[in-house]
Amino acid sequence: MARADEQPRPDLGKQYAATRSLTLDLAAPLSDADATIQPHPDASPAKWHLAHTTWFFETFILRDHVPGYSLYDERWPYLFNSYYEGEGERHMRARRGMVSRPSLDEIRAYRAHVDTVLMDALPQLPDEVQALVTLGVHHEQQHQELFLTDILATLAENPLDPVYMDGPPLQQDNAAPMGWTRHEGGTVEIGTNGGDGFSFDCERPRHQLIVPGFELADRLVTQGEWADFMRDGGYSTPSLWLSDGWAWTCENKIESPLYWDCRDGEWSRFTLSGRRPIEPGLPVTHINYFEAEAYARWAGVRLPTEAEWELAAAHADAAAGNQLDRAAPVMPVGSDNLFGDCWQWTGSAYLPYPGFTPEEGTVGEYNGKFMCGQFVLKGASCATPRGHSRATYRNFFYPAQRWQFTGVRLARNA
Amino acid sequence: MARADEQPRPDLGKQYAATRSLTLDLAAPLSDADATIQPHPDASPAKWHLAHTTWFFETFILRDHVPGYSLYDERWPYLFNSYYEGEGERHMRARRGMVSRPSLDEIRAYRAHVDTVLMDALPQLPDEVQALVTLGVHHEQQHQELFLTDILATLAENPLDPVYMDGPPLQQDNAAPMGWTRHEGGTVEIGTNGGDGFSFDCERPRHQLIVPGFELADRLVTQGEWADFMRDGGYSTPSLWLSDGWAWTCENKIESPLYWDCRDGEWSRFTLSGRRPIEPGLPVTHINYFEAEAYARWAGVRLPTEAEWELAAAHADAAAGNQLDRAAPVMPVGSDNLFGDCWQWTGSAYLPYPGFTPEEGTVGEYNGKFMCGQFVLKGASCATPRGHSRATYRNFFYPAQRWQFTGVRLARNA
Amino acid sequence: MARADEQPRPDLGKQYAATRSLTLDLAAPLSDADATIQPHPDASPAKWHLAHTTWFFETFILRDHVPGYSLYDERWPYLFNSYYEGEGERHMRARRGMVSRPSLDEIRAYRAHVDTVLMDALPQLPDEVQALVTLGVHHEQQHQELFLTDILATLAENPLDPVYMDGPPLQQDNAAPMGWTRHEGGTVEIGTNGGDGFSFDCERPRHQLIVPGFELADRLVTQGEWADFMRDGGYSTPSLWLSDGWAWTCENKIESPLYWDCRDGEWSRFTLSGRRPIEPGLPVTHINYFEAEAYARWAGVRLPTEAEWELAAAHADAAAGNQLDRAAPVMPVGSDNLFGDCWQWTGSAYLPYPGFTPEEGTVGEYNGKFMCGQFVLKGASCATPRGHSRATYRNFFYPAQRWQFTGVRLARNA
Amino acid sequence: MARADEQPRPDLGKQYAATRSLTLDLAAPLSDADATIQPHPDASPAKWHLAHTTWFFETFILRDHVPGYSLYDERWPYLFNSYYEGEGERHMRARRGMVSRPSLDEIRAYRAHVDTVLMDALPQLPDEVQALVTLGVHHEQQHQELFLTDILATLAENPLDPVYMDGPPLQQDNAAPMGWTRHEGGTVEIGTNGGDGFSFDCERPRHQLIVPGFELADRLVTQGEWADFMRDGGYSTPSLWLSDGWAWTCENKIESPLYWDCRDGEWSRFTLSGRRPIEPGLPVTHINYFEAEAYARWAGVRLPTEAEWELAAAHADAAAGNQLDRAAPVMPVGSDNLFGDCWQWTGSAYLPYPGFTPEEGTVGEYNGKFMCGQFVLKGASCATPRGHSRATYRNFFYPAQRWQFTGVRLARNA
Repeated sequence: MARADEQPRPDLGKQYAATRSLTLDLAAPLSDADATIQPHPDASPAKWHLAHTTWFFETFILRDHVPGYSLYDERWPYLFNSYYEGEGERHMRARRGMVSRPSLDEIRAYRAHVDTVLMDALPQLPDEVQALVTLGVHHEQQHQELFLTDILATLAENPLDPVYMDGPPLQQDNAAPMGWTRHEGGTVEIGTNGGDGFSFDCERPRHQLIVPGFELADRLVTQGEWADFMRDGGYSTPSLWLSDGWAWTCENKIESPLYWDCRDGEWSRFTLSGRRPIEPGLPVTHINYFEAEAYARWAGVRLPTEAEWELAAAHADAAAGNQLDRAAPVMPVGSDNLFGDCWQWTGSAYLPYPGFTPEEGTVGEYNGKFMCGQFVLKGASCATPRGHSRATYRNFFYPAQRWQFTGVRLARNA
Repeated sequence: MARADEQPRPDLGKQYAATRSLTLDLAAPLSDADATIQPHPDASPAKWHLAHTTWFFETFILRDHVPGYSLYDERWPYLFNSYYEGEGERHMRARRGMVSRPSLDEIRAYRAHVDTVLMDALPQLPDEVQALVTLGVHHEQQHQELFLTDILATLAENPLDPVYMDGPPLQQDNAAPMGWTRHEGGTVEIGTNGGDGFSFDCERPRHQLIVPGFELADRLVTQGEWADFMRDGGYSTPSLWLSDGWAWTCENKIESPLYWDCRDGEWSRFTLSGRRPIEPGLPVTHINYFEAEAYARWAGVRLPTEAEWELAAAHADAAAGNQLDRAAPVMPVGSDNLFGDCWQWTGSAYLPYPGFTPEEGTVGEYNGKFMCGQFVLKGASCATPRGHSRATYRNFFYPAQRWQFTGVRLARNA
Repeated sequence: MARADEQPRPDLGKQYAATRSLTLDLAAPLSDADATIQPHPDASPAKWHLAHTTWFFETFILRDHVPGYSLYDERWPYLFNSYYEGEGERHMRARRGMVSRPSLDEIRAYRAHVDTVLMDALPQLPDEVQALVTLGVHHEQQHQELFLTDILATLAENPLDPVYMDGPPLQQDNAAPMGWTRHEGGTVEIGTNGGDGFSFDCERPRHQLIVPGFELADRLVTQGEWADFMRDGGYSTPSLWLSDGWAWTCENKIESPLYWDCRDGEWSRFTLSGRRPIEPGLPVTHINYFEAEAYARWAGVRLPTEAEWELAAAHADAAAGNQLDRAAPVMPVGSDNLFGDCWQWTGSAYLPYPGFTPEEGTVGEYNGKFMCGQFVLKGASCATPRGHSRATYRNFFYPAQRWQFTGVRLARNA
Repeated sequence: MARADEQPRPDLGKQYAATRSLTLDLAAPLSDADATIQPHPDASPAKWHLAHTTWFFETFILRDHVPGYSLYDERWPYLFNSYYEGEGERHMRARRGMVSRPSLDEIRAYRAHVDTVLMDALPQLPDEVQALVTLGVHHEQQHQELFLTDILATLAENPLDPVYMDGPPLQQDNAAPMGWTRHEGGTVEIGTNGGDGFSFDCERPRHQLIVPGFELADRLVTQGEWADFMRDGGYSTPSLWLSDGWAWTCENKIESPLYWDCRDGEWSRFTLSGRRPIEPGLPVTHINYFEAEAYARWAGVRLPTEAEWELAAAHADAAAGNQLDRAAPVMPVGSDNLFGDCWQWTGSAYLPYPGFTPEEGTVGEYNGKFMCGQFVLKGASCATPRGHSRATYRNFFYPAQRWQFTGVRLARNA
């Protein structure tokens, strides 16, 4: 979470309003029914995202720090707490899709209510509570991305291939050949101590480590290259795979990235803009760690470590590239930036940095308790709200998960 | 299905229209989101029931027997076929709740379209196709009952206890003591050969069998009596249970009928009219075969056979009692009739009668292929459209299922 | 169980000794390791069968009726009680294969001890306790058959195809064409009231019922005919199957009877005498109710009811045919008798006869509590101890089970 | 695996013989039945360990490098290959306990045969093949430890609490208070480049990294301390647990270390010497990563990283402490050494060192393909053959696994 000594930025209200508003815009194309479905236990209904982000502000700001505030509906925290054990019992995660009421409109009214109270109270809140508001904004940005990936997962369940938002024209060109950028390595620093911007606790503290020289690919692996991997038997060659990964392909009969489908001999993929053919020059997405790692082995190279990626990005513009600005088509476009298009798997486990300490209180459950069995992803995706990510940002997922906009940037020893 | 030699009744159009209309009325209190949820794999979304019953008419009448008819949407049969293998591939049953589109309104439009075409074509349809329309009407009536029980299952998932329709005042009286009606038995007949009314193939042919004398209770087992069974350790005494039933209680930690819940020491039950206290004089519902059978053993008697029940009902009015007439509160009321309030478990397996032959064609999948592992229930429930059931009617469910309005009428040897 | 008014037969001691001795002979070819494995949860280790049958005598005879008897090992009842809830807690069924100690030899010593005490006490036991000894003998005979089928299941798990006992020469002839025997039907009687021989409670009481005329096949369905069914797409034609049966084939990818395997285009089957080719003229075994029922539909006929089979067998010699006499090859041979070779699926659910009452006490758990979801099989198999079965005998298994010597005799309406 | 440029040690034959002989000694107390059981899918039957280690030598030495050698039984590689995809199809891991034949004696004969041929061929084998023999010896040492933990798991399944080997007298004293040893940290080196001793590929290459100063506990956490943790609600306080760990405790109803059991209010634990009371001064074992991590959080400190542990052990004697020398009681004793008693969980994920490259060929599947989702353990246990481990050794298990002799040594920031 945000550090208590951070200066509350004068534009916090504006930032809050913009984020809250974008969430509503993203939900605009959805029906109440669309917003109710939970396509699998890792995903949540769209409606739940809208309510849960609001519950976060209501609980940790209004209830805890605005005297006299009474809950909008005292039965709702049970429904909209995600996983904060410190906040008591809650509805079973896997049954979130069983809740048709409150309706999408009722949740919009809940949002409006909380927004009004919070915007009203904001100027009077002490710095450390403003820091919690900032945390809430970043929290909601994370849920904006999850909202989009969960809606994709929801619509993908429908045999009719419904469209969330119309997409750009098809892009049939191949990508330019992959180039490599050399980095010297040495004794370097990664992470942050907070300082002038927001950071999550898991990015802290900044610390030294030794990184041997390495090279990083100048672009992401493309759909066309992935099709080559498939044609070369990538999914049926056990020696390319980690043991857990091979077991995963066998149990789930995996033969392609998620949402790819072969009909009448032609591969296509389901996207937020409906079913589209393979676009060979665009980055492949929706692959998991097992697939990323197997692809890298097939290509004779490897995945970068999180330190390597962060070093390479130290001077990159984290706000550049194909990221989320407004409700618009969400899809990789194949840009030259380190950030954008898709999150990039690293070979680093998501573990605490030396000296890491979680924040006090319930919000301290935010990051630390997930430090087990997950891998770090760096960058940002086409579904990441622009401004949310940065070089020190540590995204993380389990190696089998692939419903996010996840892709591969290769690395190799120098 | 209806026999081809049955005289098409002049009021078939009226019957069709009334049934179609009642379905819409039942759906009126629901949002698109309510109608999308599938609470468990045995149940279906409300929306799916509305579409599937329409698909039945569109497929077996309009497509097959109305020249020039083109499908309303040729992609929809994949979604709305239930289990007819003869009709090709279909959407996985367990994923029916993943389909937010078409919306409830779009399905209403689909219904209106099919109704218009069918009503227009009806007078010209040959007798055997009119018989298929009759079958479709009875099929839709079955789905009306499933619609209500599935909506109950859906709303029961919601921790907020939503109300489908406001209920009658609470009924706190006890029932009168149970009496017994004696029946002589002997060489008797059950089943039907068709004749002047509709029947399903599984009710045929009428055949002789020998039934020893027996006695049948003059009312259903009540919630108050069930509470006695619970207080007496009914759910924790293995000797009362069938082996499979005991395993079922242990695996699922069963301690009460479905939808009963104990909060702060008080049992209540969730109903289509929200949460209500136990009403001791009203029939217990939502118990399965295992529970019914264990209760009977605890009470020192047994369940009736289907033949016994049918004999006792031979002269009863199947259209009497608490059954479904219109969109209104749906709940047992404790009447004196054999029919109504709830379906009554028999101790008879659902198997073919001697000489049974399923109908030709895909509709022949209707009943015969389920003749394994299920038990027969007789009567009718508060959710059964009045006029749908009759003495020869054979309802059937698996012994572990209890999301229907199912209850117990006891029997004993004479 | 045996009725208390039955006359204890003078040869009970002899019968006891012969049965106990046969069990040991059947175990002779097994190592301690062979006898320890539980191949699946429905089956039990050979060693467990040897101990459990002994526990039955020790508990219900020696402990309950022989003054001063102390348990051989007071910790063993926990291990060797099968399912008698009245006898307290017991080892989880699915973990029976986790018990290497006591060893096979220690269990042989347990058997010898119980046999000595029981044989010594037998003459003094009152009639009703002698009746329990008789029940124990029939109980052990049932376990002799299970012993053989469980050892077959155990050895079938071993990729090396081990041999339990060398088999007869291969039999490559086809069977004679199937003929049909006509039976008149009418008002008939089945079941027994006990009388001069042993019977289980579920066979009682003898009662009247009406059976229409029918015809029964004069031999069992053969392996060659089953191969025809397979070649004709029997396992991939949903219209031939019950709904539950089709689901079972799909989930388990079933393409043949149990233990059949296709290697290099040739079907073979694993038997107690190792791997053998298909023997076209011999009865097919190890098929379940779903398969039996589908085969009958494919053949245009049906399975007999239990009443039909029993009527047909009323004057047959239940001790004829290919049944178990001693430790020797166990395998169908294709005889002309109604009894022997394999148990024959009927289309009748295993339910209580009118007037059925289970015996008092814990042994009353023997049959009644399994009356749900199972189908009756009639006859006897090559693994049934000769003398164990009779026309009124009701064997029963769930429709998906097929590790017993189960086969098909067809029937049709007259 | 061993590097090809390593000097084959003159005592390789002696080492081979000693290791092979110890395995047989460990198996001496077991019956064929004991050696056949697979208690859970992570464990293997004792017999399988004896055969698999032999298969390793037969395959990678005799078959590949001894001209004219023919397989002892050409059907056995299918049974005794563990997971080498490069060696073809193999018996399903989860069904290893279904194989009663070959018997334990037949496997002893197989071992004798391979030993004779290999000892005979050894002097003529080129260096790189001798290096494979060395690898095989270390491989067998690993299986000696697994053999013991799998036998413990096997006997623990038996309600009779059988004893593998009689144990030492009970030790009821408490341990001395825990002290802390300070380490300076800085730019340090861990791992190895091979050099004069054996190492696995995953320990290589030696590389620099930066380690902040830290303190390491001077002894292991004891059973008495663990009982304090339990009494303090350690297993029911979600804030102490990683998210995955808390889910694990809930799903599996975990309340204590593996093999601990509470009977009549007294905790005891099952060991290779049967059931014993808690010995408060002895190290706790059979706890997994989730438990170790939760305990450390409860104690206000943390687990060491693998680098910290390795630095602390740089000058320790890896051959000291309570490790396995011969067939004798196997149990922690509470010594002062870094090595011995139990493996110690670190907070480090098992991932490749910078510059890691797996060996060529099938033996390259040995370590690299498991680098996902597991945590590193350092040290050695009472079941580790003395001489097998070293400071650079990287043992690894999944965070939920706890059937090994695993325990906790705490660390904290300096």
